[in-house]
Amino acid sequence: MKYSQIFTKTDKNAKKYNSANATLLTKGGFIDQTMAGVYTFLPLGTRVLRKIEKIVREEMDKIGVEIVMPALSPKEAWINTGRLEEVDILFKVCGANELSRRVNSAEYILNPTHEEIVTPLAMKFRRSYKDFPFALYQIQTKYRNEARPKSGILRGREFLMKDLYSFHTSIEDFREYYEKAKQSYWNIFERLEIKEDTVLAAASGGTFTTEFSHEFQTKCETGEDLIFQVPSTGEAFNREVAPSKAPESAQESEMKEMEHRNEPGIIGVEALCRVFNIEDFQTVKTLVFETDSKEQPVVVVALRGDYDINEMKLMEIVGCSKMRLAKEEVVEKITGAEIGYAGIINLQEGVPVYIDDSIESLVNFECGGNRTDYHILNVNWGRDIEKPEKFHDIKVAKQGDLFRETNEVYDTFRASEVGNIFPLFDKFSKALGYNYVNKEGIEKPVIMGCYGFGITRVLGVLVEKYHDENGIVWPYSVAPFHIQLLHIGEDGYKRAKELERELEANGFEVLWDDRESVSVGEKFADADLIGCPFRIVVSDKTLTQESVEIKKRNESEPNIVPMDEIVSFLRV
Amino acid sequence: MKYSQIFTKTDKNAKKYNSANATLLTKGGFIDQTMAGVYTFLPLGTRVLRKIEKIVREEMDKIGVEIVMPALSPKEAWINTGRLEEVDILFKVCGANELSRRVNSAEYILNPTHEEIVTPLAMKFRRSYKDFPFALYQIQTKYRNEARPKSGILRGREFLMKDLYSFHTSIEDFREYYEKAKQSYWNIFERLEIKEDTVLAAASGGTFTTEFSHEFQTKCETGEDLIFQVPSTGEAFNREVAPSKAPESAQESEMKEMEHRNEPGIIGVEALCRVFNIEDFQTVKTLVFETDSKEQPVVVVALRGDYDINEMKLMEIVGCSKMRLAKEEVVEKITGAEIGYAGIINLQEGVPVYIDDSIESLVNFECGGNRTDYHILNVNWGRDIEKPEKFHDIKVAKQGDLFRETNEVYDTFRASEVGNIFPLFDKFSKALGYNYVNKEGIEKPVIMGCYGFGITRVLGVLVEKYHDENGIVWPYSVAPFHIQLLHIGEDGYKRAKELERELEANGFEVLWDDRESVSVGEKFADADLIGCPFRIVVSDKTLTQESVEIKKRNESEPNIVPMDEIVSFLRV
Repeated sequence: MKYSQIFTKTDKNAKKYNSANATLLTKGGFIDQTMAGVYTFLPLGTRVLRKIEKIVREEMDKIGVEIVMPALSPKEAWINTGRLEEVDILFKVCGANELSRRVNSAEYILNPTHEEIVTPLAMKFRRSYKDFPFALYQIQTKYRNEARPKSGILRGREFLMKDLYSFHTSIEDFREYYEKAKQSYWNIFERLEIKEDTVLAAASGGTFTTEFSHEFQTKCETGEDLIFQVPSTGEAFNREVAPSKAPESAQESEMKEMEHRNEPGIIGVEALCRVFNIEDFQTVKTLVFETDSKEQPVVVVALRGDYDINEMKLMEIVGCSKMRLAKEEVVEKITGAEIGYAGIINLQEGVPVYIDDSIESLVNFECGGNRTDYHILNVNWGRDIEKPEKFHDIKVAKQGDLFRETNEVYDTFRASEVGNIFPLFDKFSKALGYNYVNKEGIEKPVIMGCYGFGITRVLGVLVEKYHDENGIVWPYSVAPFHIQLLHIGEDGYKRAKELERELEANGFEVLWDDRESVSVGEKFADADLIGCPFRIVVSDKTLTQESVEIKKRNESEPNIVPMDEIVSFLRV
Repeated sequence: MKYSQIFTKTDKNAKKYNSANATLLTKGGFIDQTMAGVYTFLPLGTRVLRKIEKIVREEMDKIGVEIVMPALSPKEAWINTGRLEEVDILFKVCGANELSRRVNSAEYILNPTHEEIVTPLAMKFRRSYKDFPFALYQIQTKYRNEARPKSGILRGREFLMKDLYSFHTSIEDFREYYEKAKQSYWNIFERLEIKEDTVLAAASGGTFTTEFSHEFQTKCETGEDLIFQVPSTGEAFNREVAPSKAPESAQESEMKEMEHRNEPGIIGVEALCRVFNIEDFQTVKTLVFETDSKEQPVVVVALRGDYDINEMKLMEIVGCSKMRLAKEEVVEKITGAEIGYAGIINLQEGVPVYIDDSIESLVNFECGGNRTDYHILNVNWGRDIEKPEKFHDIKVAKQGDLFRETNEVYDTFRASEVGNIFPLFDKFSKALGYNYVNKEGIEKPVIMGCYGFGITRVLGVLVEKYHDENGIVWPYSVAPFHIQLLHIGEDGYKRAKELERELEANGFEVLWDDRESVSVGEKFADADLIGCPFRIVVSDKTLTQESVEIKKRNESEPNIVPMDEIVSFLRV
């Protein structure tokens, strides 16, 4: 194809976005931002998108069957699952003007995901145990009302996604399929050349199960997630669920005398450290939570000042499904002080206290005085407060933390989520009444799983991973073209024209930069920016040796290749 | 592929819809109605959809380059073209609940078409005359707030469409491309096997031009449009623009005496015919319109009682762009009577009167009395009112009408629109400020065309055209599978299994009905319903002759074909 026919032009002066993918894809003419979080895919971008789509479709066809569900859905479906008011990225659709609303005043949901549609659909066709298992997938556009869409096409308000849903009569059967689906994802990542840099990380299973879901996370400096990986086993966790133990820190050997200090208005770790001239890892943060547990409506938690509380971990320990920081009157009742001065000494009797293991080894630590305006310094286990029998893990993991089972320091790295697989169990089948009839004629809820893959997102991740200071470096399997062809001189032009046809006849996709108004230097720069795997230059000079210059995008030195060896060179 | 793997089941008891496409596609398991006007494409339907898409893409790639524009667009773009309040099928999108609106309170448009997006996009990349012409297309989902979606997938609220936009520096260049685009459409229709039954019909060019647009209309009994075709030339018109002449009707030879009749409250052709015992083609309907023309703010029109007024024709004759039936006070001023008694005799002097040619040959006709409660019978040209120098065509064409140029009676038939091509000229480039710079450095508005093709709609039209009492009869090029394979008996099962693999290895798509719980009779019925071009039956009986039974879906008799000749038989 000729460059002059692909519509776009590279634009070296294009707006710089805060992500490499948005910047390079815009500069290279792959995408155009229509508005925040919404992009047009230009011809080059569309070609890459279609190639990723094809790879995903081929792998998915092996484990499921393709359908296309609509983006519009009835509100009722979302009322039935209780998600109409709950999902904070949900869009609705209605007539845009007076005329339109007069014609039809109904409101619809613009689906961000399809459990509400696929569950009743499956129910129409498959009710007997003999009909199971089965799996349906689609490659379809999703809509999410993201607050501030960022990271280019990694997180947009409109994006192309593959979503697969599987249906089972038992958890065992579901688990077997779950493993099969994992393998399909690995096949896709292998074809996209990101398998080696991708890990399967445990993540939260959502509000309806304590079981993990799994995310495929591709290492990527600009990734939104922080992954914790166990060096010896490779087991990986998203930060939100990483079980963690604080590394031991250097402590004073001698206990000092405990001091009650009156410092009006000094609240928060930073202020405490400044006023008392201590380090944050010598402070103890004490928080009071109200929960929806009947047995433990109020709990107190404490952790080292340099850690944050992980509410999901705490909820699992407490055995509740909702919690929030306690209101002022509750805090005052429990601690006897205003908010900001809670500590672990002299709390109201009978209130459950959960203490994070980050505090276990502290000597001479600080904590709140449970008295307004007071903090206590040089608190010590055993002397000033009984050491609890059990310490817990209720913190957000930090770099340097240990995996609790093996006491290894985690490897941590930033990563970008490229897929997720999710046990739904009977959440949606129960909410929407999808039972199957078993051998004995008894109805049982269907067990479901869902399996997402962000097609536009992966395109962005590929750019994040595969680029250098000159532009994108596409993996061969998804490159917009295999070859960018350049000519220099009149003979070069003629031979390039022939070569384009010849290479295309051999199954290569060629982008021939036929532009007359652009200098050779610019064409070289554009070839690097666009990032096709091979750049071929046909010049009057190389032609004196009946050869061309071929440079791989990921190598720095070009090769001189005789005309009749080009195809075999490219096929290696 | 095995039938047991395609998820759906045929459902002979499925709801009967008011269109063959919805009924048969639902029964056969191709689509499932999610809600009114919104459908899921099931595995069989998805396969057909993807095949149509592929054909369209291949033909479009020859005349344009593919992009993907978003469905969401900023409201501002629609304000700029004045269409935000004007388009009565326009949807908007906003947060669905309190949480979502708190996150982002913006409203967006859900595009029913993409002129508002593609014009500013093209403007970013192509400004010099050297950059022209070019054309961009996409295959993308559209949304329209249809009043009462009907005719199954022929008219839905969400549907897949191909839309192409072309950009030119001159009308001549645009016209040249327009012809090229037409040819691409004919290529598509040929591959879809509907070319012979499709005509290119002139249709309205919209409010901004008196030039016609063109619709590809496929003959189809259930079609929404009525097409008027000139027998000698094949030239065709959508009813809305068909130039028409009323056929001469038998008239009395003698003039009768004119009568003024007082019949209080008798208004409307039907009532007149009953009360005066005359036929509707003996009545004259007189209407008063207000227009936006400065020269002719009020006009009177008259046409035969059995015709309706075609406002578009009238507007073109008057030279105005808006008109509406005149208000009561205007009618009274012009006719001297209340609404309902307007006639062509004794109108206020100086008001322009346009008379349709359907009245020209009438003898002893009726018209309103221009006096409340009065009508006049036995009016005659020359005697009672001067015969106008010119009669006009201001009527909606009817079956039996003549083409004005040749006086031939039109062939008329119902048809379904499968594509439309539309000169936009500078409507959108002017509204959105898209100028190119010509050789002399002067800015000129870009000339545009747009070219639509309803992919889901065509799928529905194919079913409307290609079905019989037993089910669908797919054209080979888009059939969900080429072959539906059935077996009878144990040997039949084994050989069918082998045959499935063998045929697939030969490039045929095979749907093997492997179900055990279904009778052979049902499988035969299902094969007819699903409508693959070939049905192959392998039975213990045919195998005694080492052969199979092959029946074409569009033939009634099966053929006995030896095992080793199957592939060559299918390839014929």
